Amino acid sequence: MSIYVVGHKIPDSDSICGAIALAYLKNQIGEPAIATRLGEPSPETQFILDKFDFEAPELKLSYAGEQVYIVDHSEVTQAPDDIAEATIVGIVDHHKLGDLTTSTPLECWIRPVGCSNTVIKMMYDFYNVEIPKDIAGIMMCAILSDTVIFKSPTCTTADIRCVEALAEIAGIEDFKAVGMEMFNVKSDVKGAKPRELVMRDFKDFNMNDNLIGIGQLEVVDLSVFDDIKADLEADIAALKEEGNRHTVMLLLTDIMKEGSELLVVSDDADLSKKAYKIASENGRSWLPGVLSRKKQVVPPLQEVFA
Amino acid sequence: MSIYVVGHKIPDSDSICGAIALAYLKNQIGEPAIATRLGEPSPETQFILDKFDFEAPELKLSYAGEQVYIVDHSEVTQAPDDIAEATIVGIVDHHKLGDLTTSTPLECWIRPVGCSNTVIKMMYDFYNVEIPKDIAGIMMCAILSDTVIFKSPTCTTADIRCVEALAEIAGIEDFKAVGMEMFNVKSDVKGAKPRELVMRDFKDFNMNDNLIGIGQLEVVDLSVFDDIKADLEADIAALKEEGNRHTVMLLLTDIMKEGSELLVVSDDADLSKKAYKIASENGRSWLPGVLSRKKQVVPPLQEVFA
Ligand SMILES: [Mn+2]
Ligand SMILES: [Mn+2]
Repeated sequence: MSIYVVGHKIPDSDSICGAIALAYLKNQIGEPAIATRLGEPSPETQFILDKFDFEAPELKLSYAGEQVYIVDHSEVTQAPDDIAEATIVGIVDHHKLGDLTTSTPLECWIRPVGCSNTVIKMMYDFYNVEIPKDIAGIMMCAILSDTVIFKSPTCTTADIRCVEALAEIAGIEDFKAVGMEMFNVKSDVKGAKPRELVMRDFKDFNMNDNLIGIGQLEVVDLSVFDDIKADLEADIAALKEEGNRHTVMLLLTDIMKEGSELLVVSDDADLSKKAYKIASENGRSWLPGVLSRKKQVVPPLQEVFA
Repeated sequence: MSIYVVGHKIPDSDSICGAIALAYLKNQIGEPAIATRLGEPSPETQFILDKFDFEAPELKLSYAGEQVYIVDHSEVTQAPDDIAEATIVGIVDHHKLGDLTTSTPLECWIRPVGCSNTVIKMMYDFYNVEIPKDIAGIMMCAILSDTVIFKSPTCTTADIRCVEALAEIAGIEDFKAVGMEMFNVKSDVKGAKPRELVMRDFKDFNMNDNLIGIGQLEVVDLSVFDDIKADLEADIAALKEEGNRHTVMLLLTDIMKEGSELLVVSDDADLSKKAYKIASENGRSWLPGVLSRKKQVVPPLQEVFA
């Protein structure tokens, strides 16, 4: 029986590339595995897949009765809907420990690094399996994406060494140029509907039984949002109501200025002030230095809800 | 600031030896760490500590505001009472994934092997740190204990290879003899009060909001319990009431006959029948081949409560 290797809902490049890379590794060590996904690849992810000539993993939403290896999260809200009816055989991740539980022993490769693919590289090293050129390429891109080309406070020395090693395997000399190419693709928001943009990289969190949705758009220049910011705000307000959420946040991250504009709609008008100590005006605030949802946005929120 | 490295409540040899071994490793890689414990060492553990000339780790029950590395579990019921006020920086374990969660990224070294110390050996290898002779000795004993000298169905090739490597480092030729010596110590129940025996290796589990306590006593011959079985049964009945538990089980494991006598008091008179398909008489049943609480006793119970 094959293991399905799957990342989180609304998959990012780490989830998609990680599923491909880990499924390949598992197959090499004699554990049949199939990479799958829970949603459509983002334009950034599609750029990576095209660049290294991969098909997107198979779309598969139901895992009841199957064996599943979870990539890039450990949260019930981000996992397949029927994960409780599946057997989780492993988790590779780099986030806080979430609320997934199992009834049988499993393997967890979780490290406080910038990207799940950095952990997957450690797994390749542990099993002494050679990384093919094209897989090294997508792993490298996933790390450059998650670490915002090393600018994110989540980036560690392990991530940097890992990108250097993967770039060498992939035969890429200027990996930062590849990273910028990728973020330029990501910055192209022309023609996209507000909902499509809000959902492009969106995660729900259960904070003390409050559902909190947080989206993030990372671009090279925030001016791309000038004409559509009001539409984005209207959409996160709608999303809050539709999902019966306590709060929806949208982070508009300027990777060059290294900060984020935070848009918030919440049942608690003072929430962002409480969490980030910065007053918001009409639900907008500028958070200097904030690039990482995981490290800079989620933990202070959890403190507020604790 | 030091990290505290601590195993579960009612510590077994894996928890105590693992805390010592992991704290040493962390100190070697420049992360100051202190091994601690949540309770008294069992006679078996004391035998191991004495044999390799270690003091027991410091008894420490409160961890609010501290950084903690969790050994040998990932369950709230088995963790320090105030773990929610601590920062969990890591988990090394070999059980099912429990309900501990964190608000910040951490490292998890969890593998489906027979003992946490087998995983800690992998950590030594990963960091390329030499294991001192005496630490190799206690790690080896912990693995022999958890795997019942390789007889438990939880035992993997990784555990066996690990014991072989550790025995060589420790300069021990006949590690199975050391294991038997250890289980003979464990089999000495003379003079111990029923409560002391029941609690010697006792774990609480939260199963769908029912509190289930499961104790286990592993001996080389079940006849040691002949005179005290009724007292043990009276005590688990008392323990059930005191702790407002749904069920208390006590496994009397015969490591030579390779099976366990199960004593049960439960709100559900049919529970053990439902879980293990073997009828019980007056709350007693013989479960042939059952040596492992983790792999053979807990999962079928969880199915019943799912
Ligand atoms: Mn990631
Ligand atoms: Mn253990």
